[in-house]
Amino acid sequence: MIRVLFAADDAIWPEWSSPLRDAFAARGLEVDLNRHHRPEDVDAIVCAPNGPVQDFRPYDRARLVQTLWAGVEGIVGNETLAQPLARMVDPGLTEGMVEYVIAHVLRHHLGIDRILRSQDGHWNPTVPPLARDRKVTVLGLGALGAASAVQLAALRFKVTGWSASQKDIAGVSCLSGPETLKDALRSAEILVLLLPLTSETEGLIDAAALGHLPTGAVIINPGRGGLIVDADLLAALETGAVRHATLDTFRVEPLPHDHPFWSHPGVTVTPHIASATRPETAAAVVAENLARAMTDKPILHLVDRTRGY
Amino acid sequence: MIRVLFAADDAIWPEWSSPLRDAFAARGLEVDLNRHHRPEDVDAIVCAPNGPVQDFRPYDRARLVQTLWAGVEGIVGNETLAQPLARMVDPGLTEGMVEYVIAHVLRHHLGIDRILRSQDGHWNPTVPPLARDRKVTVLGLGALGAASAVQLAALRFKVTGWSASQKDIAGVSCLSGPETLKDALRSAEILVLLLPLTSETEGLIDAAALGHLPTGAVIINPGRGGLIVDADLLAALETGAVRHATLDTFRVEPLPHDHPFWSHPGVTVTPHIASATRPETAAAVVAENLARAMTDKPILHLVDRTRGY
Repeated sequence: MIRVLFAADDAIWPEWSSPLRDAFAARGLEVDLNRHHRPEDVDAIVCAPNGPVQDFRPYDRARLVQTLWAGVEGIVGNETLAQPLARMVDPGLTEGMVEYVIAHVLRHHLGIDRILRSQDGHWNPTVPPLARDRKVTVLGLGALGAASAVQLAALRFKVTGWSASQKDIAGVSCLSGPETLKDALRSAEILVLLLPLTSETEGLIDAAALGHLPTGAVIINPGRGGLIVDADLLAALETGAVRHATLDTFRVEPLPHDHPFWSHPGVTVTPHIASATRPETAAAVVAENLARAMTDKPILHLVDRTRGY
Repeated sequence: MIRVLFAADDAIWPEWSSPLRDAFAARGLEVDLNRHHRPEDVDAIVCAPNGPVQDFRPYDRARLVQTLWAGVEGIVGNETLAQPLARMVDPGLTEGMVEYVIAHVLRHHLGIDRILRSQDGHWNPTVPPLARDRKVTVLGLGALGAASAVQLAALRFKVTGWSASQKDIAGVSCLSGPETLKDALRSAEILVLLLPLTSETEGLIDAAALGHLPTGAVIINPGRGGLIVDADLLAALETGAVRHATLDTFRVEPLPHDHPFWSHPGVTVTPHIASATRPETAAAVVAENLARAMTDKPILHLVDRTRGY
């Protein structure tokens, strides 16, 4: 019997317990999944970064700490955590993210906001350009960035991807390293941020970075709020250097109701819905990693503490 | 020297003449492209259905009548036209249509209109369903419908396609014939209309058809305005049977400014911009068909007068 501790907000226990138990059974694992185990009995922990377990030292038997969310910046620096830490790479989360990215890229590409504001009886047929003539840059080519870049390329956008380490994606012009960031930004009529939040990427999109974008660029940030320097983005929106920002993640969430992003006509706020881990698809990922951990096979999506993701 | 008559609105001559001449030269054809030739000298006609040539009888030497637009309902019934008639199947037009369809399907799927109306400081995170749980039906599986269905399936929507003759498209559940229309409509949370306008399809989307849709369905019509019975759609919008209609084509265009579609909160009017023939990509199609016509090879996209498209 494998003892798995569920260490996340009680509010999400109902939506996770059945999918997890079903996935463990489907994987042939005999598991006692519970919100309460004696720390010394626990074989693995399924957790949220902000969950009830913040001191991992008593769980010295645990072979796996599996997070439920893609972002691990809230846990990777926890000095009590010596166990193997795995990020969630959930196919459902990836699919939802791709849908969000494609939807908002097309929305800005085709000028849909303008169309929705123009239901006034005036027939002004202006045919938008084709995707093949629109340059989109994706910063971050992990699971979410790569999947988004692939679908953008399938729609024939001219896609540039940029990441810390060099990637190779068919149909995507891949750049890497700090020295090429400027080039990636220069061609970004639409810029999509899907970088992890690390000491390298915090505040990456500041006045200097925004200054490299073509005039009137659009920014879409379903990645992490901390990637952007809010004041610098607002200044760029004021001058028109940036035409629009569609933001799903923020330095403080919920975004405070008096934050200028809410009322700025050039900003669309979406309340961190670009993607969520979906219990029905993520549970199988947890089960697979648990089976690997219990049989000493390589754990999937293991976090590299030095990189921070 | 091949004499080609350009028989469309003078206003579009500037944007077409250079791309056509370039494409003819690239195809190795020596062409005199002109808006004025003596009818008896003309080898081929490039035309718009509403263009200056309505009597084709004097052009008895012409081996090809190539339209610039995809829809041919304005010319196919012309009894003076005995020459081979080819529809425009332009890769640029197809790409633009796919972009429009994907953009508006995702817009409704993800509830983007609601998000744009909710920039009020209230953080209400409601994660939308995944495309894999959303049923989309495409009526019409010609070049435009098939390309749209393929991209919707690539985004993992549950796609049903329906057409007059049976098609086979990977990832798309293909139905055909009048007796299966009801099934195609029943599963359409989002319905995309890309049928040609013929005597079979005129008014196809009437009260009876709308009655088969699931409650709260969304309709997207970049096909032809005549496919829909306007009064029946407005009635379905009033009862909530149909939640929203995004319409790009209308029975009368420009849509009269007092038409109820303009002011209805459940209707988005787009001014026939879903797609346009793009001179830069379409010119090569014209050149290829001209080369074929002049060497008695099979003409591409030949219109079948009995089917009407």
